[in-house]
Amino acid sequence: MEKFEGYTYVDGGVCAAKGFQANGLNCGLNSDKNKNDLGLVVSDVMCNTAAVYTTNKVKGAPIVVTQKHLEATGGKAKAVIVNSKNANTCNADGEEKAERMAELTAKQLGILADEVVVASTGVIGQTLPIEPIESHMEELAKGLSYDGNAKATNAIMTTDTVPKEVAVTFEVDGITCTLGGMAKGSGMIHPNMATTLNFVTTDVAISTDLIQKALTEVAKITYNCLSVDGDTSTNDMVCVMANGLAGNAEITKENKDYETFKQALYIVMMNMTRMLAKDGEGATKLITCVCAGAPDLDTGIIIAKSVICSPLVKCAMYGADANCGRIMCAMGYAKTDCCVTKADVYYISAAGKILVCENGNGLSFDEDLAKKILMEDEIEIYVDLHQGDVKATAWGCDLTYDYVKINGDYRS
Amino acid sequence: MEKFEGYTYVDGGVCAAKGFQANGLNCGLNSDKNKNDLGLVVSDVMCNTAAVYTTNKVKGAPIVVTQKHLEATGGKAKAVIVNSKNANTCNADGEEKAERMAELTAKQLGILADEVVVASTGVIGQTLPIEPIESHMEELAKGLSYDGNAKATNAIMTTDTVPKEVAVTFEVDGITCTLGGMAKGSGMIHPNMATTLNFVTTDVAISTDLIQKALTEVAKITYNCLSVDGDTSTNDMVCVMANGLAGNAEITKENKDYETFKQALYIVMMNMTRMLAKDGEGATKLITCVCAGAPDLDTGIIIAKSVICSPLVKCAMYGADANCGRIMCAMGYAKTDCCVTKADVYYISAAGKILVCENGNGLSFDEDLAKKILMEDEIEIYVDLHQGDVKATAWGCDLTYDYVKINGDYRS
Repeated sequence: MEKFEGYTYVDGGVCAAKGFQANGLNCGLNSDKNKNDLGLVVSDVMCNTAAVYTTNKVKGAPIVVTQKHLEATGGKAKAVIVNSKNANTCNADGEEKAERMAELTAKQLGILADEVVVASTGVIGQTLPIEPIESHMEELAKGLSYDGNAKATNAIMTTDTVPKEVAVTFEVDGITCTLGGMAKGSGMIHPNMATTLNFVTTDVAISTDLIQKALTEVAKITYNCLSVDGDTSTNDMVCVMANGLAGNAEITKENKDYETFKQALYIVMMNMTRMLAKDGEGATKLITCVCAGAPDLDTGIIIAKSVICSPLVKCAMYGADANCGRIMCAMGYAKTDCCVTKADVYYISAAGKILVCENGNGLSFDEDLAKKILMEDEIEIYVDLHQGDVKATAWGCDLTYDYVKINGDYRS
Repeated sequence: MEKFEGYTYVDGGVCAAKGFQANGLNCGLNSDKNKNDLGLVVSDVMCNTAAVYTTNKVKGAPIVVTQKHLEATGGKAKAVIVNSKNANTCNADGEEKAERMAELTAKQLGILADEVVVASTGVIGQTLPIEPIESHMEELAKGLSYDGNAKATNAIMTTDTVPKEVAVTFEVDGITCTLGGMAKGSGMIHPNMATTLNFVTTDVAISTDLIQKALTEVAKITYNCLSVDGDTSTNDMVCVMANGLAGNAEITKENKDYETFKQALYIVMMNMTRMLAKDGEGATKLITCVCAGAPDLDTGIIIAKSVICSPLVKCAMYGADANCGRIMCAMGYAKTDCCVTKADVYYISAAGKILVCENGNGLSFDEDLAKKILMEDEIEIYVDLHQGDVKATAWGCDLTYDYVKINGDYRS
């Protein structure tokens, strides 16, 4: 993972920060008894909490319920309950079931249902069986521990092949603080607010408004610059909970401490974004597009995203084919007015760097070197537009036989 | 092919209308000597000519040159020269080479270079070798014939597995007229003006302005409702040439005769659209989405396109998985304000019809019947939004292992 001065990576994921317990278990939604399907994260004390949600108009019932809860409490929460295998979306009784999940959680923890964030991920349009959740809630709560992060992280995985956890420590006002999180992928992922389930916990003391502001800004340049397949999910959510147990003076202004917090959030969310891209359904390669020489950030993001979203670019990367036409084509249909016809295009990896297109024109290049570069499992497509001095990054993956295989029969 | 009253399907494609000759041959751009790579279509007399082009900002040099020519002549042309295997795009000498193709053609035919429409399709960013074209132009022109359509159609094919030709006869003002065309697919196809190379010829007498108007309207509900892979090509063009040899009084007003002509254009372009979708790269199935109950046409098109563009829908169709969540999700992120959460969703094919989602909620359904329906090679996804009485259609295909295979190493 990329190093950032003043920040140290630590273990513990969603339990890394002070005062956060977690647990996960198999309640029977998933027929594989070795795979958790129900997860719980709880803070010892009330948290200032902010979230961003999917922009899909077909919203999962848990999204609707969580929005209601955070509105009712004015951005306070103590717990997250989350299940996998069933998205509880497009169901007539969806909200009722999501509320029931919150109530069951609240009862075990002795808190209010409104203080519970609810999330679900999995198949859409199938009724959520509530009985398995009801009958396992006591066991789930009793098993909470300060090192239960791995169990909870396992519970939110769907087609993920690896768990996704990141945490960092850093100093705010001379006090050591921690911020960490867990995320799930790995299909139905496309830039549009959140694009996944992601829970971030921190012991920093900071106001809900500033968490929301930092989250919105960081999501724009991390999760919203990620695409696995162009499908924006119905159930996406990134939720940040801050319990203040680090003991710093609460951050209530956009000062240096706020910037320190925001950078921690960026480091965790950016690394999660990379992990989600690299573990995209069927993916064999992480594809990063860096768009340099952009006139502004929005333009750079639009162009970088257009490149990593292109099915033809994704197939070419899978096949290690240094086809610069695919890149130029994808930049050309990006929805921006910016001139892209004067661009230089490079492929970069651990094996080297090669220029394949200059001033918008394809070059003859060393095909053997290009192949070697593109055989690596982390590829950077570097484009310089020569239209300004802003740089933007987007993350994606290759398109493979296995993506088709996984999604040819997702429900079984 | 769907029947339309007053219109009769006939053979002959781009040569079906009176006074159009064509030819195609292998000039050496394609190393497979059995595959044509250079095609020519010529009208005996001057044609009123209109075209629509790709919206990609990275435009192939032939697009730029054709636009210049049609501007210079005020919408008149006599010939189309087209090559496959090399797109002549992102090349420093691209326009010069495209002009040269027009000049070589004009010289053989004794016409002006400005009267030649130029098109290229194939790999982007590699210099177009002009010598093979130069040395074969005389042979190409000498071999022109009134039944040369198949040779020309073969010349524009790239990864297409079948040639694409359609023609109809119909009456204008008591006179029998003919309109026909040829098209190529089959990847880098996404709704945005044209989405392919398509040449339509007709012996109807009609003004250039009205051809342009009809073409723009018909493209909106045919080619622009087609997606194979979400990539909008750099070289797309639909060009319609009308030589007036049928002998009808020239259509210069939007009267009944204009509507008759427009309907003929619709029939040919709609059938081409279906063929392009069904022969999409790696495709095993034609997927049509009919969006009924839409408040207006634009909204219906946006939603139908969102469904057929979704990689997850495309994979589910490949796997014959009746996952209604994929459909609801894709409608939910369609860029429209229309309510989609009350929709009914059906799967329809020659094997039957099944309702899988009602009022936005997933249903339990007969999985065996659903599987049987989705095992057919032409599937209709029928959604009723219940928000109005307009119906729109979009065409696409499934996403398969072979799409990935074809595009993993396109250049070789």
